[in-house]
Amino acid sequence: MKAAILVIGDEIISGHTLDTNSNYLANALNELGISVVEIVSVGDRVEEIASELKALLGKADIILTSGGLGSTHDDVTKRAIAEALSRKLVLEESVIESITKRADPNRMPKRWMLESIATLPEGSILFENPLGLAPGVGVIDGDKIIYLLPGVPCELKAIFESSVLDHIARRASGKMLRRRVLRTAGLAESEVSEALKDWLESTTIRVGMLPEISGVTLRLTAIDDDPARAEHLLDEETQKILGLLGDAVYSTEGKSIEQVVGEILIQRNLRVAVAESCTGGLIGHLLTEIPGISACLDRVLVTYSNSAKVELLGVPEEVIAAYGAVSAEVARAMALGVRERSGVDIGLSTTGIAGPSGGSESKPVGLVYMAVTNGERVIVKKRIFRGMRSAVKMRAAYHTLNMLRLFLLRG
Amino acid sequence: MKAAILVIGDEIISGHTLDTNSNYLANALNELGISVVEIVSVGDRVEEIASELKALLGKADIILTSGGLGSTHDDVTKRAIAEALSRKLVLEESVIESITKRADPNRMPKRWMLESIATLPEGSILFENPLGLAPGVGVIDGDKIIYLLPGVPCELKAIFESSVLDHIARRASGKMLRRRVLRTAGLAESEVSEALKDWLESTTIRVGMLPEISGVTLRLTAIDDDPARAEHLLDEETQKILGLLGDAVYSTEGKSIEQVVGEILIQRNLRVAVAESCTGGLIGHLLTEIPGISACLDRVLVTYSNSAKVELLGVPEEVIAAYGAVSAEVARAMALGVRERSGVDIGLSTTGIAGPSGGSESKPVGLVYMAVTNGERVIVKKRIFRGMRSAVKMRAAYHTLNMLRLFLLRG
Repeated sequence: MKAAILVIGDEIISGHTLDTNSNYLANALNELGISVVEIVSVGDRVEEIASELKALLGKADIILTSGGLGSTHDDVTKRAIAEALSRKLVLEESVIESITKRADPNRMPKRWMLESIATLPEGSILFENPLGLAPGVGVIDGDKIIYLLPGVPCELKAIFESSVLDHIARRASGKMLRRRVLRTAGLAESEVSEALKDWLESTTIRVGMLPEISGVTLRLTAIDDDPARAEHLLDEETQKILGLLGDAVYSTEGKSIEQVVGEILIQRNLRVAVAESCTGGLIGHLLTEIPGISACLDRVLVTYSNSAKVELLGVPEEVIAAYGAVSAEVARAMALGVRERSGVDIGLSTTGIAGPSGGSESKPVGLVYMAVTNGERVIVKKRIFRGMRSAVKMRAAYHTLNMLRLFLLRG
Repeated sequence: MKAAILVIGDEIISGHTLDTNSNYLANALNELGISVVEIVSVGDRVEEIASELKALLGKADIILTSGGLGSTHDDVTKRAIAEALSRKLVLEESVIESITKRADPNRMPKRWMLESIATLPEGSILFENPLGLAPGVGVIDGDKIIYLLPGVPCELKAIFESSVLDHIARRASGKMLRRRVLRTAGLAESEVSEALKDWLESTTIRVGMLPEISGVTLRLTAIDDDPARAEHLLDEETQKILGLLGDAVYSTEGKSIEQVVGEILIQRNLRVAVAESCTGGLIGHLLTEIPGISACLDRVLVTYSNSAKVELLGVPEEVIAAYGAVSAEVARAMALGVRERSGVDIGLSTTGIAGPSGGSESKPVGLVYMAVTNGERVIVKKRIFRGMRSAVKMRAAYHTLNMLRLFLLRG
């Protein structure tokens, strides 16, 4: 089974808006075992959309379109599809009813807008839009099908994941599919591949592997007649992965590491303080992306200068003089100092050389020391991160958050 | 004159890699007044590329391709172009010589790789690649032209900006073009449009306007027979914009606001300390993206808790009790406190409600107070930023950096 994606919108072909929808859809279809043969972007003109659609129907069994489903004059996708398939456009009163039922009475769209949204090619299948007004639309043409999705990325994803994906899977194989995202930290892609080698050869689920700056993400897809059985299969396979990768897996629900760490802190009512040097506030920034963290995060001190390290954290001047500001000893003293001075449960620290200058033979750019402590136990790690200044900061911040996670986990 | 873009690569249609090249090229062509009629992505197969190219030649005068110019087995773009145009492939020894001259002798590519790169459709025009081995290639077909560019984004941009752009401009109008990026802060897109209204109607240069979270970016393009005259025209028009927008323009060279602020601090040898609350370390993170900032940034204190504000910044407890932690009075005391306690020239502060919870009728989510002081003068601003937690943090951080910039500028 082959698919093609048709992206519709002047804002895309003018370069005003970066199209991320086709990438998202191509990824999801590939994980399903359906290959995408072509992605085409065209402007908001009926003839061009219609002619492109006809060309794609010659090359693929499934066409997904993105954009042009709203109620303004440049939303012409449904008109173009109807033209390409010589299909009548009809007003679907049920769509208007459904929107009217859900919409805020104070912000009810005008009748002509509703009619524009509810005018569909005859015989359309509807897919509910959990986030917006215009539903997704399916149009069957012989043994081919065209799915029309809105251009707003979050709406496209919401419709796709809540119903279109299953519809495609059932058409492709008569089966249902369930997906799960596992996230890992601290392992390179090659290490994950190596650890999962035998399992990857024997598993019946589909696995996508994506290296990201915070770690390697695994995307699992199970396909079965029965969605409950697919879900059960995912549970089993997830357990096997956890057995092989251990606590390198920080989420089986696709959460970010800052979210996972934040949730543990909030749950256990632990208070934390951070002393950052080379990461420059990035750990604080990541932790404060989590709603409710204010109950746990007492302070973050970015002690960039030596004097700030001495004054604010009580790092002994002679330790800095003896080992240098970028050293295991200073990282240790920073974590202990910030914890003690703020009277919290846990102290974290980073000190390193983000570059591009400031490196030396013995202390190269990318060298970072990171520490975590509860006052009794101190763990210090040394790493040399590759990449530019910004990448070094990111890798060091994620690595420190993962150290905190493991510290909390292993007790 | 119409253009089309053909993106080539299995990694694109499989969703493994997000294509940003077509967006970049579409933007650049549009600023030149050349509209893009279609963007197509296909895999690494000769027949598909060739057939797509033939279809696009029927729709556009200029085709730009991205990807497939390297020396591996899936780099088939040149072969496909030759097939589509029934053109012979020839070995261009000059390409091999040019690569051999520039390459590191210890990392010289093998002869077969060089030959693969240097095998081009007969009659090709070459465009030097400042960042990689494979040059850009131009193939003329009647009154149409096809530009072949590599898929690696930085190489594509380098070749496009250093030579292809001028080549297109000269073909389109017989003229040369020069571009400039102006960045503004503190004004909404509608305010920029309003202020520039008359100028926009009378200017002869092309203007693109792009709202970003840090402010509105203006992209200027001047076209003339003589590149020096185009450059002069840009100078003149930039002066007019500066007259109309004043110090809302923070860069005429496309720099980020943190870069501009960092450079002023470094130049004037000023030391700064930051007290962040709702921005959670983001100001520190942005400032520490700038190499060399360690000479100017003494410390960043993320005083999330009230006790940290009292202890570390000397904010009087009674001020917090009287006005609340999110208040002009506390922002003022934070900036003064962090400056004085760290003994630096300038103190900055933020305090606000990033959301999603914590808001009230009188202090809604998005409310942020920001302050900057040199000890004598204190400027405090109040804003209600819209958006999610993350957007509120970003807007507040950029707004504070802009306050610092204006403070330094206006003395």
